[in-house]
Amino acid sequence: MNDDSKRIVLGVQYDGAPWQGWQTQPHGETVQDRLEAALRQFAGTDVATTCAGRTDAGVHALEQIVHFDTPLDRDMNSWVRGVNSFLPPSIAVRWATAIAGDAEQEFHARFSARSRTYQYVLYNNPVRAPLLDGKAGWAFRPLDVDRMREGAAHLLGEHDFSSFRSVQCQAKSPVKTMYAIDLQRRGDILLLTLHANAFLYHMVRNIVGSLIFVGTGARPADWMKELLDGRDRKVAAPTFMPDGLYLAKIDYDPNWKLPQTPPQNFLWL
Amino acid sequence: MNDDSKRIVLGVQYDGAPWQGWQTQPHGETVQDRLEAALRQFAGTDVATTCAGRTDAGVHALEQIVHFDTPLDRDMNSWVRGVNSFLPPSIAVRWATAIAGDAEQEFHARFSARSRTYQYVLYNNPVRAPLLDGKAGWAFRPLDVDRMREGAAHLLGEHDFSSFRSVQCQAKSPVKTMYAIDLQRRGDILLLTLHANAFLYHMVRNIVGSLIFVGTGARPADWMKELLDGRDRKVAAPTFMPDGLYLAKIDYDPNWKLPQTPPQNFLWL
Repeated sequence: MNDDSKRIVLGVQYDGAPWQGWQTQPHGETVQDRLEAALRQFAGTDVATTCAGRTDAGVHALEQIVHFDTPLDRDMNSWVRGVNSFLPPSIAVRWATAIAGDAEQEFHARFSARSRTYQYVLYNNPVRAPLLDGKAGWAFRPLDVDRMREGAAHLLGEHDFSSFRSVQCQAKSPVKTMYAIDLQRRGDILLLTLHANAFLYHMVRNIVGSLIFVGTGARPADWMKELLDGRDRKVAAPTFMPDGLYLAKIDYDPNWKLPQTPPQNFLWL
Repeated sequence: MNDDSKRIVLGVQYDGAPWQGWQTQPHGETVQDRLEAALRQFAGTDVATTCAGRTDAGVHALEQIVHFDTPLDRDMNSWVRGVNSFLPPSIAVRWATAIAGDAEQEFHARFSARSRTYQYVLYNNPVRAPLLDGKAGWAFRPLDVDRMREGAAHLLGEHDFSSFRSVQCQAKSPVKTMYAIDLQRRGDILLLTLHANAFLYHMVRNIVGSLIFVGTGARPADWMKELLDGRDRKVAAPTFMPDGLYLAKIDYDPNWKLPQTPPQNFLWL
């Protein structure tokens, strides 16, 4: 970062349904492409962004964290309102803050992150729900939440998650630590919340697919442990649809003083 | 209805955002057009439908009630699954039931309805929420829910609602009875529920626009009574956006034994 530029951090929310994921692509139909285009229109110059978690096509973010460097001196409200005026309805900057840092300790959206929380919303009913289209996964067979909780408990702690890792995953290590898994049901909606130090590519969607096999009774709860122990992607269930997946929260050292808002899943208040 | 045909009733849910309202139009971009096209594909013959409440462009239905007559003898599950296979993701038949009736007492989706419940979801935050785009109205100034409740209470009971009636309204009388109004807040989301024997065209959106004036403090709570007494559409607030409006429930005599599901607002579980 140049001496005359500062690092700005954004909280960004998006509906992933219309987009080919976060990361920039040649055809430009990604969240990063649209955000950088809006930043360019507002700032009058190219702005390169870095995010905390590169979400896949169709995956939503309640609060994605993004940083960029700029020599521009604008107040933070201007960044929010100005950039939002150039963004489509499905993407918005929720807040902006300037980060004080130095060469030795510089904030980085991805590398400064301590842990991540993802949520998956499942609609469990024989008939699909148009008002949840693109916002929730659909499981039409009845799901036993207690069995799913029992199966999910096997994932807690440090494990080699190779069985839930996509072949396209570029992470250095398949070993991650799952701090908490919570599963709640209200009516026909299930909300699965996973908190881990980091996630592998497609890991949540592969876990959801396997937990559904457990919930319908197609597999026993202990199958989740078998899958983990097998360390083989081919034994787990197919990757479940992206529609219900939300990047909910990225955790950082409170000393960075990010104005993060509490994760609020609008489908589950 | 012919002797050899029976009346079938459907519960239909839709996301109104992509559609030009319920009622059929020449260009065919309405919920009724799409539903009748799907019924025609499934039944192999033209099917004319009648709904309980003609929703406007952008307005959603948690459970619209629709009837039609057909000589076809199919089981009710086939109507649900078969018709859904021809519908877009934003529309679905949730249930179907055959109604026993005779010439003197025949079920009619609109005329048999005793009362209606509409809900309006408002997002109250200085910054818009992409995940609620098309699903909630946006009020960026802080709203005082107690003041809004006080204002809304003036609408309870039988009143001439001319001040909240669109000039395009074709209802015979502007006098309707409001049985209940409820306003709840959770976090940044307000849910307004209105239960009345019937509603005038744009009535809920005009009430919401006026209640927002009360909630921001631009008008006192008693202004709602002044508006009612004025019986003049020109004195009330502008019609508020359709995005947050949901036709939630239509009430019928329980003797019809409709398999209605409890109104479940997915944005407010």
